[in-house]
Amino acid sequence: MTPAPGPTRLILDCDPGHDDMVALILAARHPSLRLEAVTTVAGNAPVRDTTRNALRILRAIGSRVPVYQGADRPLMRTQQTAQGFHGENGLASAGAELPPCDEAPAPGHAVEAIIRLVEASPGEITVVTTGPMTNLALALRLRPELARRVRRIAFMGGSTGAGNVTPAAEFNIWADAEAARIVLESGAPLAMFGLNVTHQARLTPAHVERVRRSGGRLCEPLADLLTFYLETSARHFGERELGAPLHDPCPVAYLARPELFEMQALPVQVVTDGGSAYGMTLCDTRVLPPERDDRKRNVEVAVRVDAAGFAELVLGALEGL
Amino acid sequence: MTPAPGPTRLILDCDPGHDDMVALILAARHPSLRLEAVTTVAGNAPVRDTTRNALRILRAIGSRVPVYQGADRPLMRTQQTAQGFHGENGLASAGAELPPCDEAPAPGHAVEAIIRLVEASPGEITVVTTGPMTNLALALRLRPELARRVRRIAFMGGSTGAGNVTPAAEFNIWADAEAARIVLESGAPLAMFGLNVTHQARLTPAHVERVRRSGGRLCEPLADLLTFYLETSARHFGERELGAPLHDPCPVAYLARPELFEMQALPVQVVTDGGSAYGMTLCDTRVLPPERDDRKRNVEVAVRVDAAGFAELVLGALEGL
Amino acid sequence: MTPAPGPTRLILDCDPGHDDMVALILAARHPSLRLEAVTTVAGNAPVRDTTRNALRILRAIGSRVPVYQGADRPLMRTQQTAQGFHGENGLASAGAELPPCDEAPAPGHAVEAIIRLVEASPGEITVVTTGPMTNLALALRLRPELARRVRRIAFMGGSTGAGNVTPAAEFNIWADAEAARIVLESGAPLAMFGLNVTHQARLTPAHVERVRRSGGRLCEPLADLLTFYLETSARHFGERELGAPLHDPCPVAYLARPELFEMQALPVQVVTDGGSAYGMTLCDTRVLPPERDDRKRNVEVAVRVDAAGFAELVLGALEGL
Amino acid sequence: MTPAPGPTRLILDCDPGHDDMVALILAARHPSLRLEAVTTVAGNAPVRDTTRNALRILRAIGSRVPVYQGADRPLMRTQQTAQGFHGENGLASAGAELPPCDEAPAPGHAVEAIIRLVEASPGEITVVTTGPMTNLALALRLRPELARRVRRIAFMGGSTGAGNVTPAAEFNIWADAEAARIVLESGAPLAMFGLNVTHQARLTPAHVERVRRSGGRLCEPLADLLTFYLETSARHFGERELGAPLHDPCPVAYLARPELFEMQALPVQVVTDGGSAYGMTLCDTRVLPPERDDRKRNVEVAVRVDAAGFAELVLGALEGL
Repeated sequence: MTPAPGPTRLILDCDPGHDDMVALILAARHPSLRLEAVTTVAGNAPVRDTTRNALRILRAIGSRVPVYQGADRPLMRTQQTAQGFHGENGLASAGAELPPCDEAPAPGHAVEAIIRLVEASPGEITVVTTGPMTNLALALRLRPELARRVRRIAFMGGSTGAGNVTPAAEFNIWADAEAARIVLESGAPLAMFGLNVTHQARLTPAHVERVRRSGGRLCEPLADLLTFYLETSARHFGERELGAPLHDPCPVAYLARPELFEMQALPVQVVTDGGSAYGMTLCDTRVLPPERDDRKRNVEVAVRVDAAGFAELVLGALEGL
Repeated sequence: MTPAPGPTRLILDCDPGHDDMVALILAARHPSLRLEAVTTVAGNAPVRDTTRNALRILRAIGSRVPVYQGADRPLMRTQQTAQGFHGENGLASAGAELPPCDEAPAPGHAVEAIIRLVEASPGEITVVTTGPMTNLALALRLRPELARRVRRIAFMGGSTGAGNVTPAAEFNIWADAEAARIVLESGAPLAMFGLNVTHQARLTPAHVERVRRSGGRLCEPLADLLTFYLETSARHFGERELGAPLHDPCPVAYLARPELFEMQALPVQVVTDGGSAYGMTLCDTRVLPPERDDRKRNVEVAVRVDAAGFAELVLGALEGL
Repeated sequence: MTPAPGPTRLILDCDPGHDDMVALILAARHPSLRLEAVTTVAGNAPVRDTTRNALRILRAIGSRVPVYQGADRPLMRTQQTAQGFHGENGLASAGAELPPCDEAPAPGHAVEAIIRLVEASPGEITVVTTGPMTNLALALRLRPELARRVRRIAFMGGSTGAGNVTPAAEFNIWADAEAARIVLESGAPLAMFGLNVTHQARLTPAHVERVRRSGGRLCEPLADLLTFYLETSARHFGERELGAPLHDPCPVAYLARPELFEMQALPVQVVTDGGSAYGMTLCDTRVLPPERDDRKRNVEVAVRVDAAGFAELVLGALEGL
Repeated sequence: MTPAPGPTRLILDCDPGHDDMVALILAARHPSLRLEAVTTVAGNAPVRDTTRNALRILRAIGSRVPVYQGADRPLMRTQQTAQGFHGENGLASAGAELPPCDEAPAPGHAVEAIIRLVEASPGEITVVTTGPMTNLALALRLRPELARRVRRIAFMGGSTGAGNVTPAAEFNIWADAEAARIVLESGAPLAMFGLNVTHQARLTPAHVERVRRSGGRLCEPLADLLTFYLETSARHFGERELGAPLHDPCPVAYLARPELFEMQALPVQVVTDGGSAYGMTLCDTRVLPPERDDRKRNVEVAVRVDAAGFAELVLGALEGL
């Protein structure tokens, strides 16, 4: 990719969610990014909740970017949320809350907004997904040529190794593996930020304290929301001392500062059969001699992140708000 | 496992195969092992070939251990061999061959032999499999109590990470994943030696030269057979300079010298659904806090091997034959 | 269904196709029907061909109804056409052809047209599908409430018994079983016209002769197109003397003259697992005592047709054109 | 099949079960049949219960045929019994019971007995299964040549149409579809007696009254057992006035009096994928022209039975016992 002149124009398709919140704030505030629309999807919580959360986060930080509501359920499978993790409304706090917001989403469906924006600027728009990829899959089925017109699709999802929600699967892919398969087989330029790298991108209690003391109007609610996230993560996965993985900001961080990440081109397929591997991003890491290797490497997979640089990038977006 | 007094009594269920050959020789010759029967299965080649190869190998080295022929096809799936790798007869050579052998296998089916031997000495017999696990699966369905009467099942198969025959699957498991699932769900004590560890256990050209110069009657054919193996491995997987993984001797080496291996107890399930992950040994490596962790760790998985110690053990069995 | 006052307003979603042609003509011409839009889908042939065929048929008979092009591939599965049956362009003739037509389809995607028309007249629009149900499935995922706003969905597809393209599956369902499953599980009022009933609805050589002699401008091409259909059907399925089943006109005939059909409410599910029953419409015909029967009967299934009445209805639309 | 001179020699592999009881009595008593062994399997009830029931039934009627206990679980799937139908012990009564029997089964596994008997008389032995086909599947995997040495396999299972335990599947096949698939793909001569024909073979209250009044020592318990069966059948499936289908005696009746049945050679495959059609016997009833029809018709499928002749045959075996 030759860098586009000027800031990277992006659509963030998300299901906030605490780590989506950080991704939203980073996308809205980083000077090298231009967030042109936010689209929502059912995932961590039902889509009405994730839509309201997205609006609440953006308006609280003063962003007027339009928010389009999207798919309320997965393509084929039974819907599963992560409300046991993110709280009933998808954005529970250990204390103070963000200011309420009763603004309605922008008119039209998220899928239509994605199609319209990408088609209006072929080769210009990057779509970041930090939830199930239902919207993008529907857009690609309605307009297959979108795969060639999008600048890039950068997604939080999957893993080169262990999953979280099952031994094989990460939540975003598992929540709509059919959608993920459509996206990964679409031919679009893809960058994957899976658990293998997001588990290196940690939010620690010390980071949260920095946010809390950074003196802005939203410091208390932001710190309390992140504290909830640290606590629920420790309860689910242990590793309290390591902090919690900041999954969703990773693809946004990559667009802002690609040099923080080490990428590897790999063949990746999504397992959609009904069994125990459903939702796995099967990354073909086999070593083959070049003359026998005709595998199509459809995804740039993030394999390493500069954890300290990532933390500073994220804190830079949160502090002083 | 408290070590049994005296040598470890074992049945080796195999589909030779070059690396099975090394496993057979190590099992037959190591002083701390007592090889009581060899059973064969379709895998690397059709079962008539693997049976003849097993007899040829054992009789060439002077072993009179009985060889029982077993299953000629997988439980459910279409049969696949690895004759593209091990040669048409399953044991091709780059030069000299082992002496021919036209001895018939011992009377009775491999499954019946396994049942009889294990039931005759409850808690005493270790079964090592270095091919598809069809025989053991049939034995466990005929006599479910075998799972409690076998001392241990140590198998070469699977992987904690990448496969070889597919991105997800190692050949032995993929060749009869239904059989592997039966064995892994049987409740028997299990030790797994998958690609993750066998790829650390390399046979190098220098090793083969040591065999060739070691001066015994069989040095030439053994070295030529191993040379074929090195070459076919380099052609399929590259990494010529690293040599070839010695998969099948690993579980035998573990029984002879367990201290060479680092083991980790893990929940492991075999994927048998028809899709792209068929034949995967899905190892649950997720970190969970103890109070939320009720996973049954059904397999001791080898995760590291002392490569030098392993090589000396194997060469010690091959040199001077 | 209480009949709506006035003609039945309908959208015909199709992939012409010879029997789709008859369905289109019947829908456009029958006085009790008002065809408001035609939408096309990949099925019998690629979507560009089915779109051109739809335009060609409609314009030939003087209809100006708009034609919207739809999905060019199934939701999940690999695309399969029936060009071996309907000819390379989906509408091959044994002689004369319909007048060519190079009109472009109406602007916008078929899915968007379906959504717009149904939402504009809630409870008023019946959608008939005579091809794979991809468009309708996408519409239902974009606007789940469509299931309550559509008057009815009447589809040609499936079978209570044997399939055609496989022992279990009829072509339209098998060509996109995931789409069919979305539609059948949507909660919309459904009427199914499967092979079990369409095989009773025969087009015979005598019928084709009546068309040919009926004296209109299009009699020759229509008769030659239907002759191609009779011949290809006889070649594929034998039963030459019985003529060919007129699958696609059945749901349209039902809307025009419901009394021709005997319907039975049944629980119907679509098999989407990858195996040999993929694409089956599994109709639960089990007899259960009322107190144990809590099955949801989601589909009105046509089980019998008045073959003579059906033939007269169809010929009435074709003769004299 | 040219009839063998003398009585038909058979092994009955069963899981009694009330209708298995009738099959056992018919097999043991009909003069043109020679029941050489009974083998048992888990199915209607756990295998200990079905074994005890088989012994109890046979010893009560004075038969000394050996009973071999077989598989205690299906090949792959989770075990399911029909104790909700046949009662906790698999043979519940509405009143009097058969005399108890504490005889142990004959030594050796059912699979070994089947292998031994068939191999001792190649071409002579018919195996009838009236339960899940686990034993036969294991025998065929241990001795694939059994498929050529058995005279015929006649099984109660499957359906050309609706199932009973699911919309698609009949209990015996569904309880171990992998086993059924092995048997149906084995190449052995097969005769299938599925729900489509067994639902024509009814036991009515009037039949039970004939048994009760027929004056033998066992009339009361037999009539009470059959009354339980009538009642549980009516409760599960309604149709009280029609009586209950006598599934399991059908293949035995066919061997005794083949002229009672109309058979049709069909291609039949067993669906083993995990979805909603699991356990279906997919019968390919499609009409194809001979020149395009290369389907292998692996099963003779019973499609009609002379219900009155069948009832007399069965009652003849039960009356006066």
